[in-house]
Amino acid sequence: MPGDLPPDEFRRAMHRVADLVADYLEQVGDYPVLPRIAPGDVAAALPAAPPLEAEPLDRVLDDYQRLIEPNVTHWNHPGFLAYFAITGSGPGILGEALAAGLNVNAMLWRTGPAPTELEERTCDWLRQMMDLPEGFSGHINDTASISSLLALAVARHRLPGVDVRGKGLAGRPEVPPLTVYASDQAHSSIDKGAILLGIGHENVRRIESDAAFRMSVPALAAAIARDRAAGRLPMAVVATAGTTSTTSVDPLPEIADLCEQEGLFLHVDAAYAGSAAICPEHRALMAGMERADSIVVNPHKWMFTPVDCSVLFVRDPALLRSAFSLVPEYLRTDEAGVTNLMDLGIQLGRRFRSLKLWMVIRTFGVEGLRERIREHCALARWLAGAIEAAAGFEVAAPVPFSVVCFRAKVEGGAEAEDRFNERLLAAINAAGPFFLSHTVLQGRYTLRVAIGNLRTTRADVEELWDLVRGSAARLRAEMGN
Amino acid sequence: MPGDLPPDEFRRAMHRVADLVADYLEQVGDYPVLPRIAPGDVAAALPAAPPLEAEPLDRVLDDYQRLIEPNVTHWNHPGFLAYFAITGSGPGILGEALAAGLNVNAMLWRTGPAPTELEERTCDWLRQMMDLPEGFSGHINDTASISSLLALAVARHRLPGVDVRGKGLAGRPEVPPLTVYASDQAHSSIDKGAILLGIGHENVRRIESDAAFRMSVPALAAAIARDRAAGRLPMAVVATAGTTSTTSVDPLPEIADLCEQEGLFLHVDAAYAGSAAICPEHRALMAGMERADSIVVNPHKWMFTPVDCSVLFVRDPALLRSAFSLVPEYLRTDEAGVTNLMDLGIQLGRRFRSLKLWMVIRTFGVEGLRERIREHCALARWLAGAIEAAAGFEVAAPVPFSVVCFRAKVEGGAEAEDRFNERLLAAINAAGPFFLSHTVLQGRYTLRVAIGNLRTTRADVEELWDLVRGSAARLRAEMGN
Repeated sequence: MPGDLPPDEFRRAMHRVADLVADYLEQVGDYPVLPRIAPGDVAAALPAAPPLEAEPLDRVLDDYQRLIEPNVTHWNHPGFLAYFAITGSGPGILGEALAAGLNVNAMLWRTGPAPTELEERTCDWLRQMMDLPEGFSGHINDTASISSLLALAVARHRLPGVDVRGKGLAGRPEVPPLTVYASDQAHSSIDKGAILLGIGHENVRRIESDAAFRMSVPALAAAIARDRAAGRLPMAVVATAGTTSTTSVDPLPEIADLCEQEGLFLHVDAAYAGSAAICPEHRALMAGMERADSIVVNPHKWMFTPVDCSVLFVRDPALLRSAFSLVPEYLRTDEAGVTNLMDLGIQLGRRFRSLKLWMVIRTFGVEGLRERIREHCALARWLAGAIEAAAGFEVAAPVPFSVVCFRAKVEGGAEAEDRFNERLLAAINAAGPFFLSHTVLQGRYTLRVAIGNLRTTRADVEELWDLVRGSAARLRAEMGN
Repeated sequence: MPGDLPPDEFRRAMHRVADLVADYLEQVGDYPVLPRIAPGDVAAALPAAPPLEAEPLDRVLDDYQRLIEPNVTHWNHPGFLAYFAITGSGPGILGEALAAGLNVNAMLWRTGPAPTELEERTCDWLRQMMDLPEGFSGHINDTASISSLLALAVARHRLPGVDVRGKGLAGRPEVPPLTVYASDQAHSSIDKGAILLGIGHENVRRIESDAAFRMSVPALAAAIARDRAAGRLPMAVVATAGTTSTTSVDPLPEIADLCEQEGLFLHVDAAYAGSAAICPEHRALMAGMERADSIVVNPHKWMFTPVDCSVLFVRDPALLRSAFSLVPEYLRTDEAGVTNLMDLGIQLGRRFRSLKLWMVIRTFGVEGLRERIREHCALARWLAGAIEAAAGFEVAAPVPFSVVCFRAKVEGGAEAEDRFNERLLAAINAAGPFFLSHTVLQGRYTLRVAIGNLRTTRADVEELWDLVRGSAARLRAEMGN
């Protein structure tokens, strides 16, 4: 019998992996955040054909150490400050390793009783932590792309008289073009969702935002009115609490009012900033979120849970079920009244993702999570203050959470300044200890510092700021600016 | 500074987890496959509110041992023979634990160079292992639900003159209703995909299958002709290589011929049986698969890789990109010619899933994987032979791979026999050491034995067969049949 690895060999290897992971987390800061390799370097070191014969496990783990670990971008590095910085925290890694051993597919209650009930309970913990009303029911998806897709699918499903589930959208002259609204700062996943759902990219109205990158409600109202006048069918508004570029929060109460008046589904993309709602002092900025029909928050973004873990809260789980539930004979079970997670979305397979989130919440505690989020916000405020106080730099957007957008100011007009900041970003990222990303705000190239990793300290942020100033000074000298 | 767990505490806990997982895999066979709990039992043992203060990690791990591990359905149990039996094998678990430590989101080459290139290489290994032509390009999704959804989305995207990406499907009288074809044995994910894409459930034509549960090609041709005559727009055929109920394989060459004549996109759902294509002796049955436009195969089903890992092969990756790629400013990078995995689907976030698959392929080797798949097929053949030879039982479908469908024969007509088999299944599953599922074939309730776990041995299958016969005899005695 071939079977699995011999038990002793597995145990020994698993202990080696325990040390590999522990060593990695202790030493990750010694790597450059971005590996110094060119496209194709890793592929060139991998055999073109698969091995016919079994290889010793230790050789595979040696190759992992030699070839893989050094050549990933180090998301768990204290200097990873790009996109949204995340953390695969210790408790989360433990949970993920345990879940891998169980290898449960919790598609049905019967196929994963504890995973199903732990998912429901843990999502309800998160609901309470965010101070959302009891009516919201949460479940875990892999990504916010999927959570927001499901939200838009529910919005489409509830359109009266359309029966999109049964009849689809094509070849139905009686169904007008559907439209979706989101600000010009909203995440690209909204466009991708609309494309997938057959709404069409041209029917996503990107509403202008104000000077603080918040959706303009008058512009939203005007767009809806225009679409109605043109015979289109407005379907949903996606408001963002914590936009990707600047972490701005759309004016949720006004948007909720408008959605109520217009009978539109309101989805709130709080994938990043939803985590901050566990701190009472951040809730005022996100007030109105509780009026949404659905909310997405990603514990894998700013709640220290390894990817992937995206929680979708919906106000009407029956609607979600009626949009997606489809039970073939081979998946029928007897248990009455239970949640079968497969009914809540598009994927039949369901990993046991709540385990890691449960371990993170318990091991840090709600107060401990708040403390960590506050620390990240404090680091961001410190950096923004330093930038504001420095000559030759400007903060490019308000800093409500843990992301700072800034640029170096140079003479010679916008185009010259954009090119300078592009070169500045390249110089910072080439140095090794930090990785920043960029965005474009009001047409202007802008650098972003996103704080969200548990290993990032005040000393790191100070070192970054030194690097930014030093790099800018060198570039200015080179360019005579 | 709050930060992550102290390094020593994490290392100690990770070693405890190493032992927890190793112990679990050694002892999982001692559990009943289905935990003996009622809905709500686990939830009742979980606090209603999240803990405000941090809890000691060892207490959390104690609770895992006490409350979670015993109350999952044990997919890694040698007696798990329901649905498709899977294995979280040792090498795969090691890979998943390492990936959790790295916590990479390989959305861009830049954010995960080794993960991106390892995914491309590992998928190409799998392509070679399955003897698929070079033109196929593979990438990893979470589930076959998503892989098949993407395939159907690509089929929709390439419809000439429709521009579904830009304009959507609604309010366009010039776009006829779209139709999709799959057999009455195809997986429910095809319906869910069609619902999501705005095609509509009623426009999924479930084509009748023959006595061996293979799609009837004349019926398919007739359905396409009927839809064309009615002004509808046939879009794609989904053929299955290894259906969920019986693992039947649709007549792929004839379906490929028809798709070619009709200009239809052909997607092959080989989520389960695709793994068997690594054995040359299984390829004849799946010949024609190489003519598909896309193929899904799930290494998390029958290639001993922990969930989730679904590989989608497409013949035209440029088409996939043009269906989905959408690059906002904050995700633009400079590297030319690289693969950015986010362009290949709907989800922006991409876990490092290739690591576990790479470790499985290397640690077992292609020959070792073949040997394991052959062993599972041999166990299924043995069981089918035993059932055929026994009085009072019948094998209900051909056994091309590792799944056996059967039923007990009883007097009193079909209805009585169905009720008897339902009770038989309940009795088998209540015993503890095994978990089987059921299906309905040609209207008749049928039990399924799915072999796919690396811990399942000939002794287990013999014990199962004893249990089946014993349970049936007891039931017959009770019911006087």
